[in-house]
Amino acid sequence: MSGLVNFRGCCSVLVTGASRGLGLQIVRDLASGGSSPGKIIATTRNPATAQKLQELADKHNNIHIVPLDVVSQESIEKCVEEVGQLVQEEGLNCLINNAGINVVADFHSVTAEKMIENFHTNTVAPLMVTKAFLPLLKQAASRGKAAGSGSMSIQRAAVINITSLLGSVELNWGERANNFSWYPYRTSKSALNMVTRCLAVDLEADGILCMGIHPGWVRTDMGGSQAPLSPEESISSLLHVIGGLTEKDHGSFLNFTGEVLPW
Amino acid sequence: MSGLVNFRGCCSVLVTGASRGLGLQIVRDLASGGSSPGKIIATTRNPATAQKLQELADKHNNIHIVPLDVVSQESIEKCVEEVGQLVQEEGLNCLINNAGINVVADFHSVTAEKMIENFHTNTVAPLMVTKAFLPLLKQAASRGKAAGSGSMSIQRAAVINITSLLGSVELNWGERANNFSWYPYRTSKSALNMVTRCLAVDLEADGILCMGIHPGWVRTDMGGSQAPLSPEESISSLLHVIGGLTEKDHGSFLNFTGEVLPW
Ligand SMILES: NC(=O)c1ccc[n+]([C@@H]2O[C@H](COP(=O)([O-])OP(=O)(O)OC[C@H]3O[C@@H](n4cnc5c(N)ncnc54)[C@H](OP(=O)(O)O)[C@@H]3O)[C@@H](O)[C@H]2O)c1
Ligand SMILES: NC(=O)c1ccc[n+]([C@@H]2O[C@H](COP(=O)([O-])OP(=O)(O)OC[C@H]3O[C@@H](n4cnc5c(N)ncnc54)[C@H](OP(=O)(O)O)[C@@H]3O)[C@@H](O)[C@H]2O)c1
Repeated sequence: MSGLVNFRGCCSVLVTGASRGLGLQIVRDLASGGSSPGKIIATTRNPATAQKLQELADKHNNIHIVPLDVVSQESIEKCVEEVGQLVQEEGLNCLINNAGINVVADFHSVTAEKMIENFHTNTVAPLMVTKAFLPLLKQAASRGKAAGSGSMSIQRAAVINITSLLGSVELNWGERANNFSWYPYRTSKSALNMVTRCLAVDLEADGILCMGIHPGWVRTDMGGSQAPLSPEESISSLLHVIGGLTEKDHGSFLNFTGEVLPW
Repeated sequence: MSGLVNFRGCCSVLVTGASRGLGLQIVRDLASGGSSPGKIIATTRNPATAQKLQELADKHNNIHIVPLDVVSQESIEKCVEEVGQLVQEEGLNCLINNAGINVVADFHSVTAEKMIENFHTNTVAPLMVTKAFLPLLKQAASRGKAAGSGSMSIQRAAVINITSLLGSVELNWGERANNFSWYPYRTSKSALNMVTRCLAVDLEADGILCMGIHPGWVRTDMGGSQAPLSPEESISSLLHVIGGLTEKDHGSFLNFTGEVLPW
């Protein structure tokens, strides 16, 4: 299964948190293969230390590294300016809000500060990033319409939020729940799901597809070494799914394998 | 329909945000009628200006006004101490996390600060308040068990979170969604639903019932004058529902009329 072919016609994709883990793997998968998007905008809060990303960019000249700290409004605005100059009148086709943290805390160790820190990075940041990129997303969406596509897709314009199964309130029950009593992370991802849904309602008129996707439990710094999936397995499937999204997926919460997940 | 009879056997109930609106109405309903709980602990961040609450307390000597600002850890700890002295070895039977704010902001006006402010009061505060009252809730739960009730109920020990239909990610779609594009409030209540569910998992072993309830759209300062329900209508039904809660409602999200709502 390869997601790459579906990015044909997608001029530009921006990924947050591309220094390592799933974000880096998304950039790697997008860059390799013949139907790579015209511009892969790989953002990271610290380009100088993002060694692996730098190496990838040295090999693929459609990778553009742009600094972005998603919790800094100043950084977001600078990034939009830089990306605007890169994409010009074509706009931005696909924004992947991937950057995230897991401030691990259970009932006993949770504090107000931990809750707010996780909420800021995982929930508020994707919203503020999306707000700031809206003019560029709208530009891509209206060009897509002018070119004959009034339907929704990542080839036209889309906001993809990397969320988590742990953000499902419904599934937080029974055995699975007890193993992950992570208040800051779980609340941040259920709130992110609400942000996704609000964005889907608000950006529908502009023709911008919005949805959330769970990447599976993956061996990254966050997922840990016990996770069943490699980044390669997760991301090839995830890109395949998002490459094929249509109107019917607008406002949805999908697994990396494509099934609908409960809220 | 009256909820009062079901509070028989409930020694103590604590309500946050009891100065006005739904919190004040809960205190009023609990105090009137023959089967009022032994102690109604009406908390407010500013007792001196809570005129109506003071008047109620003058009439009913089971109402105890205790200061509590739910976003201040210092205030929470002082409150627990004072309540501990009030309830003594009986513990606290029922904690109603009602205090809440609506930081109105749509896609265009939302800021990181507004998101965090609403999240702090509506999501983080109920969690921190519950954590702090856990020893008193546990005490009530184990006394209930010793007295022959191993089942769950507000008469034994319970945490009731006043949440909102607007926190339902599922229902945030179609016409209803467009009318209430309130990012800070909606995300805070969906995250509160996750907190409720996490608490239900974690406090089950202690025999403490945890659930969330939507009070309906009610004419209060928050609900506005166009709301269809009076505080009397909302709260008489809501108290009836919570008075009759059992194990099967543990971890649930109910409407004030008793039906299950989707997450
Ligand atoms: N791994 C899993 O099993 C799993 C499961 C479900 C969902 N997810 C979600 O998938 C996404 C990626 O997770 P991952 O496993 O790849 O995590 P990871 O290996 O810990 O990588 C996290 C990435 O986010 C970046 N980041 C964090 N805070 C940032 C900020 N303020 N500004 C910019 N970038 C920031 C990090 O950048 P630095 O290098 O600068 O720190 C890093 O690139 C997250 O949203 C996560 O919640 C992961
Ligand atoms: N009204 C509705 O239609 C509706 C619908 C769904 C859900 N709800 C929920 O029902 C609950 C009560 O709402 P309401 O309609 O009664 O609102 P309200 O009339 O605005 O009253 C809010 C109450 O919360 C208190 N409060 C706010 N921040 C506080 C803090 N930091 N510490 C302590 N108390 C604080 C206020 O105290 P002060 O007087 O000191 O400000 C006041 O007593 C809220 O959780 C709300 O989200 C209401």
